[in-house]
Amino acid sequence: MQEESYVMIGGDGRHSYAKNSNLQRVGADHAKTLIMEAITENLDIDEDVSCPVSNIFGIADLGCSVGPNTNVSMRNIIEAVVQKYKSKGRHDSSLPVFQVFFNDHVSNDFNTLFANLPVDRQYFAAGVPGSFYHRLFPKASLKFVYSAYALHWLSKAPPEVGDLDSASCNKGKLYYQNAKKEVGQAYSAQFEKDMESFLSARAEELAPGGLIAILMSGRKEGTLPIQSSLGPQYQPLESSLLDMVNEEIISKDKMDSFNLPIYSPSAEEIKGFSDKKWVF
Amino acid sequence: MQEESYVMIGGDGRHSYAKNSNLQRVGADHAKTLIMEAITENLDIDEDVSCPVSNIFGIADLGCSVGPNTNVSMRNIIEAVVQKYKSKGRHDSSLPVFQVFFNDHVSNDFNTLFANLPVDRQYFAAGVPGSFYHRLFPKASLKFVYSAYALHWLSKAPPEVGDLDSASCNKGKLYYQNAKKEVGQAYSAQFEKDMESFLSARAEELAPGGLIAILMSGRKEGTLPIQSSLGPQYQPLESSLLDMVNEEIISKDKMDSFNLPIYSPSAEEIKGFSDKKWVF
Repeated sequence: MQEESYVMIGGDGRHSYAKNSNLQRVGADHAKTLIMEAITENLDIDEDVSCPVSNIFGIADLGCSVGPNTNVSMRNIIEAVVQKYKSKGRHDSSLPVFQVFFNDHVSNDFNTLFANLPVDRQYFAAGVPGSFYHRLFPKASLKFVYSAYALHWLSKAPPEVGDLDSASCNKGKLYYQNAKKEVGQAYSAQFEKDMESFLSARAEELAPGGLIAILMSGRKEGTLPIQSSLGPQYQPLESSLLDMVNEEIISKDKMDSFNLPIYSPSAEEIKGFSDKKWVF
Repeated sequence: MQEESYVMIGGDGRHSYAKNSNLQRVGADHAKTLIMEAITENLDIDEDVSCPVSNIFGIADLGCSVGPNTNVSMRNIIEAVVQKYKSKGRHDSSLPVFQVFFNDHVSNDFNTLFANLPVDRQYFAAGVPGSFYHRLFPKASLKFVYSAYALHWLSKAPPEVGDLDSASCNKGKLYYQNAKKEVGQAYSAQFEKDMESFLSARAEELAPGGLIAILMSGRKEGTLPIQSSLGPQYQPLESSLLDMVNEEIISKDKMDSFNLPIYSPSAEEIKGFSDKKWVF
């Protein structure tokens, strides 16, 4: 089964992501202090001065969409990194040069993203098309990887929940909240597989001493996937689709085989990953 | 006066650049052998093995437009570089990793460009928005710079030829062929200024031992700018605009102040640049 690509609505019209991403912005603002602290405490800036390009500080925003949130986040990250360098006695003339890579699916609206980059930006900008579940950058070329409200998008819905012949088929639903236990387990397994792909790729791409910061919505500790609190958001869509099935506008099979490729992990699931020995 | 940005028509419709760039393709094919030879003879692949990211071979296509020509050119360049490395005894496992930066104006259709990147590409891809008359990349981060059929686009038409009060105003024409001598000289001076900006920026961005390959249309040696042979292409447009002036659809002043920001240099002009001492 192919990877699925659900991109945010491009442009800057009324229904665009650019005009409808305030909630994500609030989340990023809350995380700002945490990210600043992580950079201050954990970023390793001892670099190999013999290397002519070691002064490039590569930052990637994975799943950046079309803006404007990414602009605010990149400015905050760069500010924190500059502060860290200055606290180590580095002067303006010897600060690193920033190169920011904005990544999202090939079908993301990069035209809008590029048109809205801040004119006074303090970095070289580049767009990188492709799924972050694969390699996107050369080995050791990034010093900071950021991803906000993107990793809840799985590479695809777990195949079995859309398979009409499977015992795990998620019939009459398009999400795993209040579904059969097996459906929640299948989603959890897909998330684990995707995170492994994500982290393996980043382990290659991150330079020694670099950092990854991930912002994503999660569910309450100690709960099962099917007890996810993200569900109510999708209830109106589910109900509308069921109405369309009843009115024979779409077929029951189509509804049964369609499932949203999103997942909201618990803190325990995330801790499971950070306990693994990743070779960064 | 602001820089002007004339981008090729995006998308892949009937009038798109993607469907109307065969001539440029033929030119790039002719240049292939020259570029292969230049890489074989002049590319310096002695690198600093102590540097962890020295294995990244950065290539930029400046003024890449939306494809598909750039895909063919990038494949040819990478093939030639790989051959060069192999001829020096490097094996598959120690070949450089390629990262290709596709550059064009912010208003270029990067969405179409990204959608048409070859699926089986042997490089990491990135899009870089911005004018190549400015810095686009960190210092020493590129090993090969390529630009095809892009540098005849000046950063702007020389201001004086569109200034109604200037003795150099190019009245009743939108191009410098068969114009007053001063108009040709103004264009030549603008081209020189732009090339200086272009080469200064690249001198910073190119890594030691790297190469630049520029493909552009030129005019016959020993001719004046006003004897340019590119002119006839624009004659129909000029005539149509003059008809519109006569029919009072557009104003005479508008016609007099508008000039195409393109230039076709002679071999002597280009040699003038290569004789200068650029610190690459």
